[in-house]
Amino acid sequence: MLHEKLNWRYATKAMDPSKKVPRAKLDAIIEAINLAPTSSGLQPFEVLVITNDDLRAKLRAVAWDQAQITDSTYLLVFAAWDNYTAERIDRVVTQTHKERGTPLEVLNGYYDTLKANYLPRSADVNYAHAARQAYIALGIALTAAAFEEVDATPMEGFDPDAVDEILGLREKGLRSVTLMPIGYRAQSGDRLLGAKKVRKPLSELITEIA
Amino acid sequence: MLHEKLNWRYATKAMDPSKKVPRAKLDAIIEAINLAPTSSGLQPFEVLVITNDDLRAKLRAVAWDQAQITDSTYLLVFAAWDNYTAERIDRVVTQTHKERGTPLEVLNGYYDTLKANYLPRSADVNYAHAARQAYIALGIALTAAAFEEVDATPMEGFDPDAVDEILGLREKGLRSVTLMPIGYRAQSGDRLLGAKKVRKPLSELITEIA
Repeated sequence: MLHEKLNWRYATKAMDPSKKVPRAKLDAIIEAINLAPTSSGLQPFEVLVITNDDLRAKLRAVAWDQAQITDSTYLLVFAAWDNYTAERIDRVVTQTHKERGTPLEVLNGYYDTLKANYLPRSADVNYAHAARQAYIALGIALTAAAFEEVDATPMEGFDPDAVDEILGLREKGLRSVTLMPIGYRAQSGDRLLGAKKVRKPLSELITEIA
Repeated sequence: MLHEKLNWRYATKAMDPSKKVPRAKLDAIIEAINLAPTSSGLQPFEVLVITNDDLRAKLRAVAWDQAQITDSTYLLVFAAWDNYTAERIDRVVTQTHKERGTPLEVLNGYYDTLKANYLPRSADVNYAHAARQAYIALGIALTAAAFEEVDATPMEGFDPDAVDEILGLREKGLRSVTLMPIGYRAQSGDRLLGAKKVRKPLSELITEIA
């Protein structure tokens, strides 16, 4: 089942702008993103869902003119925290205490250690860590799109500083990590449509040590 | 279906070493890892599958003594390329040409640009990029484990230099990124067993710009 979905999906280069992804499918993908596991449960990223045409045209211009940015129904922008802060970590502690009932002293024991580890690090190191967590969610989002039979394209080909500027991300303490337009594959104009999926032979992926 | 699986999984802290994951389930998880999308199809990581008891004891000692490292059936170590090289990129070009039939001039047009971009960058920048790709696969591997009804724990709590040393990764041009023991949850000894999954309210995850 999962393999079938993963084989169905591909990095769609040409989307048909006349076919619209139903809102319920977007919601299902968002829900999967929110269920993605992250380090210490911090979920150190946000996702912007952009349908505004002017903004999408501006973003396309700083992303190698990739057409899916404007031809998709929804453009998702994964944006990671620019740094870890005590406030950001405390929100997780408070919510976990409230929702799960874990005693605060237990949570503080764990998260105080985390703060002692994270807070002295540079913003760049913490951002890099947060960005990795967003990639866990990206993998799950792409999988969720396939389950919804919606096409999606993971994109790194853009100028992150320009995207941050266009979307005002830095003021919110965020930095763009990856784009993911979701829409429907066009029936022509994409040399990847129907192309064989190329993957490493398992002998180059896996080493077993028994 | 997917949501049900994502809700079922959790970062299992206590595994029952007497319950063994069947080989076929490991194979299904590996296959999903290999199907994970990666930037430009490079798949810039490998996965070690460790069942050797001595090695697992050594790894546990440099990973905060986390018991799943030795109580799991299989310990997966995701190890990213330490750098991009022309040889590594050329292997992908050759394989894609062979398996997909894409003309070499088309592939070289794309991958020569990629080389011009990647090869002058520092090894650290390239490793950071490769590590992010491994996190896409980690997200999909955790999802695949849930579909196989196998427990798994994403782990960053280890000394990466020590893990690299124990497994001889640097000599192979690899660096450890994350550990993922797979096994079966113990019925006691884990405060996370049965705990409510805590996730951001969607209002803190999602911003829509229409």
